[in-house]
Amino acid sequence: MLSTNQLGENAKEASKALIRLSTDQKNKALQLAADYLTSQADFIIQANARDMDAAEANQVTGALLDRLRLDASRIEGMATGLREVALLDDPVGEALSMKNRPNGLQIAQVRVPLGVVGIIYESRPNVTADAFALCLKTGNAVILRGGKEAIHSNKAIVHVIQQALKEAGIPDAAIQLVEDTSRDSAVAMMKMNQYLDVLIPRGGAGLIQTVVANSQVPVLETGVGNCHTFIDEFADPQKAIPIAVNAKTHRPGVCNAMETLLVHQSVAEAMLPEIGEAMKKYKVEIRGDKTVTSLIKDALPATEEDWRTEYLDMILAVKVVGSLQEAIDHIAEYGTKHSEAIVTENYSNAQRFLHEVDAAAVYVNASTRFTDGYEFGFGAEIGISTQKLHARGPMGLKELTSTKYVVYGNGQIRG
Amino acid sequence: MLSTNQLGENAKEASKALIRLSTDQKNKALQLAADYLTSQADFIIQANARDMDAAEANQVTGALLDRLRLDASRIEGMATGLREVALLDDPVGEALSMKNRPNGLQIAQVRVPLGVVGIIYESRPNVTADAFALCLKTGNAVILRGGKEAIHSNKAIVHVIQQALKEAGIPDAAIQLVEDTSRDSAVAMMKMNQYLDVLIPRGGAGLIQTVVANSQVPVLETGVGNCHTFIDEFADPQKAIPIAVNAKTHRPGVCNAMETLLVHQSVAEAMLPEIGEAMKKYKVEIRGDKTVTSLIKDALPATEEDWRTEYLDMILAVKVVGSLQEAIDHIAEYGTKHSEAIVTENYSNAQRFLHEVDAAAVYVNASTRFTDGYEFGFGAEIGISTQKLHARGPMGLKELTSTKYVVYGNGQIRG
Repeated sequence: MLSTNQLGENAKEASKALIRLSTDQKNKALQLAADYLTSQADFIIQANARDMDAAEANQVTGALLDRLRLDASRIEGMATGLREVALLDDPVGEALSMKNRPNGLQIAQVRVPLGVVGIIYESRPNVTADAFALCLKTGNAVILRGGKEAIHSNKAIVHVIQQALKEAGIPDAAIQLVEDTSRDSAVAMMKMNQYLDVLIPRGGAGLIQTVVANSQVPVLETGVGNCHTFIDEFADPQKAIPIAVNAKTHRPGVCNAMETLLVHQSVAEAMLPEIGEAMKKYKVEIRGDKTVTSLIKDALPATEEDWRTEYLDMILAVKVVGSLQEAIDHIAEYGTKHSEAIVTENYSNAQRFLHEVDAAAVYVNASTRFTDGYEFGFGAEIGISTQKLHARGPMGLKELTSTKYVVYGNGQIRG
Repeated sequence: MLSTNQLGENAKEASKALIRLSTDQKNKALQLAADYLTSQADFIIQANARDMDAAEANQVTGALLDRLRLDASRIEGMATGLREVALLDDPVGEALSMKNRPNGLQIAQVRVPLGVVGIIYESRPNVTADAFALCLKTGNAVILRGGKEAIHSNKAIVHVIQQALKEAGIPDAAIQLVEDTSRDSAVAMMKMNQYLDVLIPRGGAGLIQTVVANSQVPVLETGVGNCHTFIDEFADPQKAIPIAVNAKTHRPGVCNAMETLLVHQSVAEAMLPEIGEAMKKYKVEIRGDKTVTSLIKDALPATEEDWRTEYLDMILAVKVVGSLQEAIDHIAEYGTKHSEAIVTENYSNAQRFLHEVDAAAVYVNASTRFTDGYEFGFGAEIGISTQKLHARGPMGLKELTSTKYVVYGNGQIRG
């Protein structure tokens, strides 16, 4: 088993080769890796069976167990993902600007690979293939540190992809797995400034906070989402109610789901009972302030803690506010700067909300569920950033690049 | 004296007001602050005298003492700086993209202020006014933590600017100074994730490394520069020699000055003696390998340490290399990814160097001294980033912004 520093050294070497690859070479390697995943599906499924056995022995059941399971169809899904990334535009080499200076210097700002990307994740084994595809497409080497529960599946997936890379004539250290899944290896990665250009934590709030607090490597923080929808006094109920229901119930376990609904007092009486009925169909538990509990049957009283909670479940906090300002203030106090929506027909209120609410994505008259790389048209997603540096919101291929200034001279010296 | 957390709280409140200011309001405030600096120059000079007295009592002399000195002309220079920033385009509100999605959602990516910027600096007191101007223009509140040696000057400058802000109807917490110049206050700032959106260290390598290693707040790392110039076998001596001399001698104490000259062996004999003569006129001490010491009179032998050293002085390491590849490898091994130049008339060699050398700025046939926000046409500079996330190379106004996605819907829900 290689040490994390040896993995770092290998990745750095590989990244020097990756920077020289043409887009065609990268795409062919992605297609080849997809073919290998399909043809070696049985090998991966056998490895996955060991993880599944261990999970069942540890009493893991239900959705958690299902997330871990790989079958032929899910492996084909991974392969399709690789082929889709091959079809996307390559951002590397794109010039963001090109200027002539008065002294004749030509200065271009050009997208380049970041170099070596580290990812610490707790997610399903398909993340292993997805992350590789996005990193290879952008000319980055990737070091993956997945969870203990998926270690055999991850080793098999990485092994299969490395075979494809070898056949494609690309250094197989373009993808490497940290096989030590102890806390030590995660800590070691956080100190690998020398090798890692960025570290991306993907998983629960605990993992993300640990990485943000302890990493010496620059971090791309992915998202905790305590998202709000504000139904303004000028909201159209025909839009407001479906948007609120969709934002809460479409997929409650993800970061762009709504957690708190804010309703202007002047429409509370007209809309809350209907909202309560609509949510009831999805078995949503409602926790609200006094007005809410008086207007929605079965609603429980909310506590201060409810305004802060990302339930990731069929639970919704509901609060009646006296004004747009109160809604904006509530979001500033309790939000996590992920996705925030207003439902209104009033132009000035919409503009004010969009301008003053500080979040990665701000919406008028749409569900917060759209904060997603695919929905935004990026064709891929490595995560959703809730930080303000480098990338904010859904991160696709461009967010896995840096830039360099390329300066063309003909003998200029500074006077 | 307010605690750093109180300063953070104030800055956060101020940033909410700053986000609402029009470009006109910000520009008027900058002009007013410039007028105040001019009209209250005597007050600032008196405060500066206390710093100068303390420095002299501490045996500070020469360039260091001169850096600290403020007189009417230098204060006028600060005021001019503020007026120049007022004339620059405001990046806030600029849309980087605007797309219609198939479902009718309109998605714009728009520049927004970062929020609250923290700057830890050791530099001259004029940085206080410069940093304020760039932050106000981009709608950011700034918390400044300058050095002990300039504390009275910094307090006076901040006080004068705050008076101007009050007159302009802008919260004076848009600029705040950390008056505690102990190590404690710097450490406290590194933990202020709750209030600071970014922390920028400006100063020596020791300060920058401490902040990078310890900050929980995202850092914009500014630059240590171990910069190289490579004279290729196909270099035009008429360009190569002036470029090398300029890169070394024009201002040796700054990060974009050349520290090591690499010369292809096939032109060493023809060019090194002349380079030695040219450098001698500027009293440059040369440290080189055996070929260098045999071709340049008075050249000292270089050690491994010389290839790693950012001299920031009239000292130059010189190495003869056998190939372009050797030059690229040397730069990869010893460079700090700041500014790297090749001098050549050969197209393919130029392209290869520009493509394969990993640095914030790569040059062909020009002096590395051009890596500078003003020279690049940004009209301003908050520092030069040598990291790969968020900003790389000279940072102007745009680098002090983040983005948000603004999504215009008409009732869309996710299916």
